[in-house]
Amino acid sequence: MNAQRLHALSLERQRQVDAVLDRFFSLAKNRAASFGAEYVKLWETLESNTVGGKRFRPRMVMAAYEALGGTDSEAAAYVGAAFELLHTALIVHDDVIDRDFSRRGIPNVSGSYRDIATTAGIPIPTAEHRGMSAAVIAGDLALFNAYRLIDRSGVADGTRSRLLEIMDDALFASAAGELIDVDFSITTKMPKVQDVLAMERLKTAVYSFECPLQAGAVLAGADESIVEVLGAFGREIGVAYQIVDDLLGVFGVETETGKTTIGDLREGKRTVLIAHATTTPQWAGIRHLVGKPDLSLDEATVVRAALEVSGSRAFTEALARVHAGRALTSLERPVLPERLRVELTPVADDVLSRVK
Amino acid sequence: MNAQRLHALSLERQRQVDAVLDRFFSLAKNRAASFGAEYVKLWETLESNTVGGKRFRPRMVMAAYEALGGTDSEAAAYVGAAFELLHTALIVHDDVIDRDFSRRGIPNVSGSYRDIATTAGIPIPTAEHRGMSAAVIAGDLALFNAYRLIDRSGVADGTRSRLLEIMDDALFASAAGELIDVDFSITTKMPKVQDVLAMERLKTAVYSFECPLQAGAVLAGADESIVEVLGAFGREIGVAYQIVDDLLGVFGVETETGKTTIGDLREGKRTVLIAHATTTPQWAGIRHLVGKPDLSLDEATVVRAALEVSGSRAFTEALARVHAGRALTSLERPVLPERLRVELTPVADDVLSRVK
Repeated sequence: MNAQRLHALSLERQRQVDAVLDRFFSLAKNRAASFGAEYVKLWETLESNTVGGKRFRPRMVMAAYEALGGTDSEAAAYVGAAFELLHTALIVHDDVIDRDFSRRGIPNVSGSYRDIATTAGIPIPTAEHRGMSAAVIAGDLALFNAYRLIDRSGVADGTRSRLLEIMDDALFASAAGELIDVDFSITTKMPKVQDVLAMERLKTAVYSFECPLQAGAVLAGADESIVEVLGAFGREIGVAYQIVDDLLGVFGVETETGKTTIGDLREGKRTVLIAHATTTPQWAGIRHLVGKPDLSLDEATVVRAALEVSGSRAFTEALARVHAGRALTSLERPVLPERLRVELTPVADDVLSRVK
Repeated sequence: MNAQRLHALSLERQRQVDAVLDRFFSLAKNRAASFGAEYVKLWETLESNTVGGKRFRPRMVMAAYEALGGTDSEAAAYVGAAFELLHTALIVHDDVIDRDFSRRGIPNVSGSYRDIATTAGIPIPTAEHRGMSAAVIAGDLALFNAYRLIDRSGVADGTRSRLLEIMDDALFASAAGELIDVDFSITTKMPKVQDVLAMERLKTAVYSFECPLQAGAVLAGADESIVEVLGAFGREIGVAYQIVDDLLGVFGVETETGKTTIGDLREGKRTVLIAHATTTPQWAGIRHLVGKPDLSLDEATVVRAALEVSGSRAFTEALARVHAGRALTSLERPVLPERLRVELTPVADDVLSRVK
């Protein structure tokens, strides 16, 4: 299968997942209509916070499923859409926890509701509180319906139970990671590299990579040994992805990533990059800048230079390569069919290619 | 069946639900242990925010189920426990929205986590934020597992689907009601009595009465006509219950209800009582007191007196009686078996007896 064919497949999968989500939101909005226009608006806001993504997690589900011989792509699209809704729920609530009102430069649920309120003349603290309240509610709806979409996929009993277990694992891990992240953010103490890695794996990698891949395999009725290898691949590539994400948050190109390269520094986000830097002599020169809410562009340049000189950037890039390399190695396990290797190797390559 | 026998049954049901919840939390805590002690603590906090209640919703499920001839009380206890977890999820997130750190005088999830942080020397705003963050996470875990317990009840496919639909209805309504309540709280405009009633029904009555009763009936394999009557009974008694709750929040006896009689007034909570008062001449004399955060005991006495003179208290009591009366009338429908009438009549009587 060549790259062009893989790309076409990927778009087709995205289309199928979008169709499931469209239907889901249409039904919800119709149902909400009898509760009043305000409730329809909440569903619309939730929808606009769900659409437009790259459908990354659903594509993991469907790639594993189809590469393992699954043919009911409708069922796989449901399971994929379930993971997309789980993702929406988690980021909507993560933004509540972080008191963020936008994501990638666009107002999120809290931001949309805050803006409606301020436009109506409501003072900012009250408007922000309304925004966050709406986001708590919207996230609950998304979370609950993530579960529900798995149930609605129409798969047989035993498979459904396994899929629900996997989604349960996803949330269980993510909640644990979010809790650790909250604790990171309230102390001035800097965590160790290993602690940041563990947190990032739990908070994001498990539900974004491990679990979607495993769900696709279970749905295809694959052998437990394959499910296990996919877990290992997902774990390593997921961690690599998070490490690269941390790098791009400081050294990326905003027009490519859609992510500012100053936000993480201003927030003082505990990343692998920063955790490593704290162990180097250069830290003394930048510690007052990392987490400075009004960090200037010039100051950010100083921080970036120090992160280069300290070797923190090189260390972090190397770490991403190690994990991506382990992911690729796991794909060589003989138990995996060739087609799965063909589907997943580009996923690992993509992650690596983002490390310049 | 006499009152003594009914009481014994009720305790037995409570014990069965507690056993399911004990098992659920034990498993979760064991599982959390491999993620670290902090995560176990989150589960313990969630557990202590779930236990100790009167298991009101589970008892609705089980009463309907057993009165309709159901014999698998273990399955009913699972479904009951699911509604209890849904309740926990909703109140934990409701407290986040209301920025409340205690419930009935005891620290809630936010409060417990805030207190741990302040004890560790963390400044109050950060500690409060940590408390609310933990509560967002804990509520997510409870919500997701409400669904999961229904799935684990072990009931057949068709029944499970119907139960999930009912729980979906419960959350769908509650989210709509919560949204309306948020909007009430950010405007100085007072809603009409009918709007308060609609909000209270959606936010609380549907998931506390209608849906648990219907779930019990569906689990027992009851005819749709019976499910419908139980919906009607639940709707009316649920609304009556909320109205009484509003009354007790101002005119109750704290030692009996465990609820302060000044909190609602200080908060300026939009209740039937207050919505009615705004339409009376007495409102002009108390409008500056309702919602006054530091309302004194003497001022509260002034408000209570005005609510009496205005007829708002009498109006509200009468309204509770109307709805409870309608609930009792619905029980007379011939389609209901006698045993169901015997089980549910005391529920309505209880609500009425709280209106002095």
